[in-house]
Amino acid sequence: MARRAFTFLILICCATICPVFLLENGMALTPIMGWLHWERFTCNTDCYNDPDNCVSEKLFMQIADIMVTDGWKDAGYEYVCIDDCWLALTRDKEGRLQADPDRFPGGIKKLADYVHAKGLKLGIYQDVGNRTCAGYPGSYGHYDIDAQTFAEWEVDLLKFDGCNFINLDILVEGYKNMSRALINTGRNITFSCEWPLYLWPFQTPNYTDIREHCNQWRNSGDVFDSWKSVTGIIDWTANHQQLLVPFAGPGAWNDPDMLVIGNFGLSPDQQVSQMIIWAMMAAPLLMSNDLRYIDPKAKALLQNKNIIAISQDPLGKQGYKIASVNNFDVWERPLSGDRYAFAVTNRYELGGPRHFPIFMATVPGWRRCFPTCLIATVFPNYVELGEHSFLSQYKFTINPTGTVLFIVSIPPKTKLLNNLNKRAGLKLNRTWKNLNTIQRKDDYF
Amino acid sequence: MARRAFTFLILICCATICPVFLLENGMALTPIMGWLHWERFTCNTDCYNDPDNCVSEKLFMQIADIMVTDGWKDAGYEYVCIDDCWLALTRDKEGRLQADPDRFPGGIKKLADYVHAKGLKLGIYQDVGNRTCAGYPGSYGHYDIDAQTFAEWEVDLLKFDGCNFINLDILVEGYKNMSRALINTGRNITFSCEWPLYLWPFQTPNYTDIREHCNQWRNSGDVFDSWKSVTGIIDWTANHQQLLVPFAGPGAWNDPDMLVIGNFGLSPDQQVSQMIIWAMMAAPLLMSNDLRYIDPKAKALLQNKNIIAISQDPLGKQGYKIASVNNFDVWERPLSGDRYAFAVTNRYELGGPRHFPIFMATVPGWRRCFPTCLIATVFPNYVELGEHSFLSQYKFTINPTGTVLFIVSIPPKTKLLNNLNKRAGLKLNRTWKNLNTIQRKDDYF
Repeated sequence: MARRAFTFLILICCATICPVFLLENGMALTPIMGWLHWERFTCNTDCYNDPDNCVSEKLFMQIADIMVTDGWKDAGYEYVCIDDCWLALTRDKEGRLQADPDRFPGGIKKLADYVHAKGLKLGIYQDVGNRTCAGYPGSYGHYDIDAQTFAEWEVDLLKFDGCNFINLDILVEGYKNMSRALINTGRNITFSCEWPLYLWPFQTPNYTDIREHCNQWRNSGDVFDSWKSVTGIIDWTANHQQLLVPFAGPGAWNDPDMLVIGNFGLSPDQQVSQMIIWAMMAAPLLMSNDLRYIDPKAKALLQNKNIIAISQDPLGKQGYKIASVNNFDVWERPLSGDRYAFAVTNRYELGGPRHFPIFMATVPGWRRCFPTCLIATVFPNYVELGEHSFLSQYKFTINPTGTVLFIVSIPPKTKLLNNLNKRAGLKLNRTWKNLNTIQRKDDYF
Repeated sequence: MARRAFTFLILICCATICPVFLLENGMALTPIMGWLHWERFTCNTDCYNDPDNCVSEKLFMQIADIMVTDGWKDAGYEYVCIDDCWLALTRDKEGRLQADPDRFPGGIKKLADYVHAKGLKLGIYQDVGNRTCAGYPGSYGHYDIDAQTFAEWEVDLLKFDGCNFINLDILVEGYKNMSRALINTGRNITFSCEWPLYLWPFQTPNYTDIREHCNQWRNSGDVFDSWKSVTGIIDWTANHQQLLVPFAGPGAWNDPDMLVIGNFGLSPDQQVSQMIIWAMMAAPLLMSNDLRYIDPKAKALLQNKNIIAISQDPLGKQGYKIASVNNFDVWERPLSGDRYAFAVTNRYELGGPRHFPIFMATVPGWRRCFPTCLIATVFPNYVELGEHSFLSQYKFTINPTGTVLFIVSIPPKTKLLNNLNKRAGLKLNRTWKNLNTIQRKDDYF
């Protein structure tokens, strides 16, 4: 464990100090926020029988309208993103991509104009291989012309999938080529990759390379509308955080896929957990839901300013899990202004709400909290709890599958003491081991 | 498949015609309804720190109060059931069980009186082995005295767990002995067994024997507060229905464990699915939730008269899954009055609501619907849809993880035709195979 923690530290330092290149398009300086059609509307192309829910310009225009009228834009959601199944089955005579003429009669340029007129941005989808995942024409062999087409249409984001690639070299080269092709258009287009997702079954992806060519990248499988899927992604990310976290930062983000809040498969507590952990992971916040009919509680959660402020923190550091203890997962994210966000999820799917005691000294980030730190809960409510010391007896109450979120700030006198401690070479030896020794009985505390 | 269906038919006929013995205590003529503390309150014995949620007489008295004042009793919920962790750590000097004196200062008899005065019934818990699952004194070697004690306390139900049994013979004999001991007390005590659950890892249980000694019996593992757990139990039951269904009937029920509706782990749609499928399975409806603080929607669902009417149908036949097609699960339950209940769950955890078309002729129970049947939806709303023929184009819309429930009644003219058909030896050859040939594309119908 100690060696793993050390490696993690080295990687974080390296990401901060070592020269790591970045896709220099100035996009996604904080994790992007918006809406993406896939999880909720999938490849529904049947506008004859299902005109209100098929993948069509009407759907994206309606979503854009609502993003402005219902507070989504004001909350920070900016991108309206098309996923797979927008294309016609063939390219045009000049070899250019074209939207399905029945479902997008105005074409993508007109849709982009509509979205831009609302003060929003338009995202589109293509694939590095011969065909998209749903079987539409892919970009392989057409990277330059497709990038040029997207730029001419004034698209603002490209989600670039990895289905139907020919071999791993072509996959990797394809992503690099499309990245360069987008840069060469002169238009700043956020580049959303799935490169590492498709490499993982064969090899550990080269994240230095990926970071240099993508603004965000999917690592794990598609999210479904279920707690099993959401926790699967959370756990996968936590299990690979030593590799992933150091590469995240302004302009470059790990992407755990869409928010499925407001749909059918998550309980209210589970929706809270996805929202908070996505904010902690500095993940793109791309909702996939039906904003036309969303439950008011889900809407309030997705528009929660305090959670969004953590997602969009300008320091741009991705959070990481620091402990799993007594079926509580504890996440920490360093924030600007000498603050840390902490999120604690109750992963015990039996019984009632449980209490999580903050033994301040035992949380790594909190070692700097000697003699005290300022604590404020962020969710479920913003409440300033004042100064707490190592001996704080404060407990959070957390529903099964729910999450609480709080912020720890280091006051000036504590900073001073930290510096003195450093000079004196003092170390606070309390570690998570203390917490790990808590007996199973404490499930009922 | 054809052979399996045939075996199933034989088993159902056998259960109807062959002499199968029954525990003759006159209890549970329809699946019992009530409340059981385990899933929500587990073994919380810490009344010092958590006085409102610990396993204590106060909790059961509060629940009894609310069951009367908040419409639960009127809806049919009758049993207030104690699970593990009610006991003192030792028997008394006469070898009799005693409740924990701090948490049950009035003792069980007084609690039973309290519950009876409300017009409700009291359930209690013990174990066939040396110790209960949580380590309290078990009933092994004390079956007669324990049964006598429960009768003197005027307990109405015994949940008899199977932890810490010595060997399989003693487990089986223990359940039989306790069953006889309860009968010998002269008090009618509903006997809730876990006998098959503990046998399954070693051998296929003898359900003829079990039915003769128990009013209900747990087959599969404990339910947790999650969709994964609920669907795990549903799928296990469907996979074993050829064995299980024939043994269910008035006084004898398969028990898939508690309803966790009103807690934290199920979305509203998933709560609907648990309620409806439990009713279809003719399962005991034992809620484990906090009735003091339950969400109004969950309360309305649990008190839904139309679903409860199906659960409590006097014909007493357990429903069974008749198809899994395009990620829809279809359940059928024969009801009194020449009616069938049908439940359809959307098991596809991606996308939006999907349409399920009733191809009437393809549903086995509906073969009797020539030329027409009367259809009424029961959930989400009770709506009479009138007569529908084989060619009905009616479609139900079902949310991901949600379930719709409808009833099919056979009108007199159809009954007459059925009889004529039988005499003429005509067979309607439409089978589920028709539906199974629907292409994957139809996910988007």
